[in-house]
Amino acid sequence: MALGKILVAQGGGPTAVINQSLVGVVLEARRHKGIDLVYGARHGVRGIINEDFVDLTQETSHNLELVAGTPASALGSTRDKPDQKYCHEIFEVLKAHGIGHFFYIGGNDSSDTVRIVNDEAAKAGYPLRSIHIPKTIDNDLVCSDHTPGFPSAARFVAQAFAGANLDNAALPGVYLAVVMGRHAGFLTAASALGKKFHDDGPHLIYLPERTFDVDKFLADVKAMHSRHGRCVIAVSEGIHDASGEPIAARLAKDLEHDAHGNLQLSGSGALADLLCEEIKAKLRIKRVRGDTFGYLQRSFVGCVSDVDQREAREVGEKAVQFAMWGDRDGSVAIKRTGYYSADYELVPLEAVAGKTRVMDDEFIAPSGTDITDAFRLYLRPLLGSGMPDAFRLRPAPVAKVLRA
Amino acid sequence: MALGKILVAQGGGPTAVINQSLVGVVLEARRHKGIDLVYGARHGVRGIINEDFVDLTQETSHNLELVAGTPASALGSTRDKPDQKYCHEIFEVLKAHGIGHFFYIGGNDSSDTVRIVNDEAAKAGYPLRSIHIPKTIDNDLVCSDHTPGFPSAARFVAQAFAGANLDNAALPGVYLAVVMGRHAGFLTAASALGKKFHDDGPHLIYLPERTFDVDKFLADVKAMHSRHGRCVIAVSEGIHDASGEPIAARLAKDLEHDAHGNLQLSGSGALADLLCEEIKAKLRIKRVRGDTFGYLQRSFVGCVSDVDQREAREVGEKAVQFAMWGDRDGSVAIKRTGYYSADYELVPLEAVAGKTRVMDDEFIAPSGTDITDAFRLYLRPLLGSGMPDAFRLRPAPVAKVLRA
Repeated sequence: MALGKILVAQGGGPTAVINQSLVGVVLEARRHKGIDLVYGARHGVRGIINEDFVDLTQETSHNLELVAGTPASALGSTRDKPDQKYCHEIFEVLKAHGIGHFFYIGGNDSSDTVRIVNDEAAKAGYPLRSIHIPKTIDNDLVCSDHTPGFPSAARFVAQAFAGANLDNAALPGVYLAVVMGRHAGFLTAASALGKKFHDDGPHLIYLPERTFDVDKFLADVKAMHSRHGRCVIAVSEGIHDASGEPIAARLAKDLEHDAHGNLQLSGSGALADLLCEEIKAKLRIKRVRGDTFGYLQRSFVGCVSDVDQREAREVGEKAVQFAMWGDRDGSVAIKRTGYYSADYELVPLEAVAGKTRVMDDEFIAPSGTDITDAFRLYLRPLLGSGMPDAFRLRPAPVAKVLRA
Repeated sequence: MALGKILVAQGGGPTAVINQSLVGVVLEARRHKGIDLVYGARHGVRGIINEDFVDLTQETSHNLELVAGTPASALGSTRDKPDQKYCHEIFEVLKAHGIGHFFYIGGNDSSDTVRIVNDEAAKAGYPLRSIHIPKTIDNDLVCSDHTPGFPSAARFVAQAFAGANLDNAALPGVYLAVVMGRHAGFLTAASALGKKFHDDGPHLIYLPERTFDVDKFLADVKAMHSRHGRCVIAVSEGIHDASGEPIAARLAKDLEHDAHGNLQLSGSGALADLLCEEIKAKLRIKRVRGDTFGYLQRSFVGCVSDVDQREAREVGEKAVQFAMWGDRDGSVAIKRTGYYSADYELVPLEAVAGKTRVMDDEFIAPSGTDITDAFRLYLRPLLGSGMPDAFRLRPAPVAKVLRA
């Protein structure tokens, strides 16, 4: 039987709905008789080893609801990726505070942390229950239909491209935007959900699941620009050549590496600028503009999917239920049970930890630069209600007089 | 007495509400007995000299309302800045088609075009009435309290910084974002409207109304980063040194120039990347991220001020009323008549044409890196209803056990 004190923390990049999961844990935990205190760690695992805890039992349900509706990690986050020694320290702190349940909201790196901490407790014979609660805008966790945070980021990307397409139609040229997603192209592919009319952009979509060839890219852009008199392009930050080298790495000379050993691709406009230079130089198209959506796509306040909000809340609630009623460890997974409805399962930590999901082939068109209707059907219900819509004037040409 | 055929066109950069003004003109014109036909020119003045007209009289009011709610220029736009000869050609086309009223929706370049075309008509003794309808996200037109399009772009910038601030608080470091506005800092200053708590970012705001000094900038960032453990910075794309040379120009080697002779500052992440490099190199702060809001700030679908929508509609309606009932030429100006209410006046074209408004001194704090409450009061009502709000957990620290 686990102890009556629980700890919750948030790791990795914030999302628009990660606080829903936090509040789901806190409010659900409050109604379980076996739980006396709900602690939160400030700034993820770093806060745990620093014993930087706050008592969430003292927070009002009213303020918790307001925080749930606020994007980004209310407890603070961290990029620390704990190794065995770090995880041992985490366990020592949990033991010293008499923590019986550890809930960690994060991506696949975070699920790996939960797995190691749980193993440490098992080795020591300490009665810890550890649950990983999924979150990532990249949608790259295995075992889940999708991950909380992705639908809202996808909605931002779809709305951004819907607007960029209208802008590009008004002032024709080439518009290119770089979207987050190191290995998985889901977020970049979401750009296609901004299309309405058959000639709307994005006209070309480049995903990390396919090899990027600069010459092929230029030929694609030239063909689309000839056809439509303009061209809107979605590019994943993770595009790479046949050898696996990121296109961004070729170009930016001194790219940072973050603590996870991952190449730092975000927070720089280099990839967009370089691709635009290629287009201008080689295709001699005059009006070429490049944007990098950067942190806006995960932090913009006011572009949230209501489906995502609800599910992020539920994964937090279910995490507590699985722990208290099932007395089990694991990772909470979202399963699609209808078009559209979802249910939740607890899957083994080892099934999720450290693994990366990428887009299925059935979601990518044979051309490699478009997505399929299967992906459209997959993503549309997740974007939620109230998506903005775009309309056009209907053609009613007037006969010329001077040039008749 | 003017002829019963009117022409409307849209010029310059699209906004979120420029179609409201278009539809305001069309629907208002339909109820005036003196107007038989409403033509629209495709892609601004270029469409006029190409006689590329559509008959808006045939469009349904239902579809016009849907188009009004769609961002970007439904008729298409242009960057052409007509000279005397070009304006003479415009006049020749208007005459050939028997156009009695010319309505041009655009910024100060567009108002100058309207002025020259109107002079051409007067010289030829042709009964043309010409009205300039204001639009620009830069808010840089003189004679108006503000310009349609600015409030919605300002709302995007405020919401973007509200989210970026939350993200930066979760994963501390330096975050810098570059905002549009070549000469006027209004849009960059709008970033401050995303602040709620006293320690929220943006902690530093750099406007084109003040000289930018790289050393001073680095000292400012260092001080704020020491104070808050993080720093969020808003930078105008138009920042320049004491000699007036744009900071962006120093850095990017081969900057384009657009047809207006203006330096091409949008559509590149160079300024943000360079400033981030400076911070990393000189201040040795590890986590430094830069975004360039780019075209999102004027084209994002789903971030519109309802006040802006209403006013953009009204300037279109009033333009027709001024022309038909007053039989006058001019530029429609917004006057603030309460907190908050607005009314409209017709001001002489010469008063607006080609002039640029910048931020009043009373809107800029003595530090030069912040805005005043006067600006907050000025901007807040324009952002409209339903602004997202951010909430925090209240502090309730837990005593340390291991490190007690």
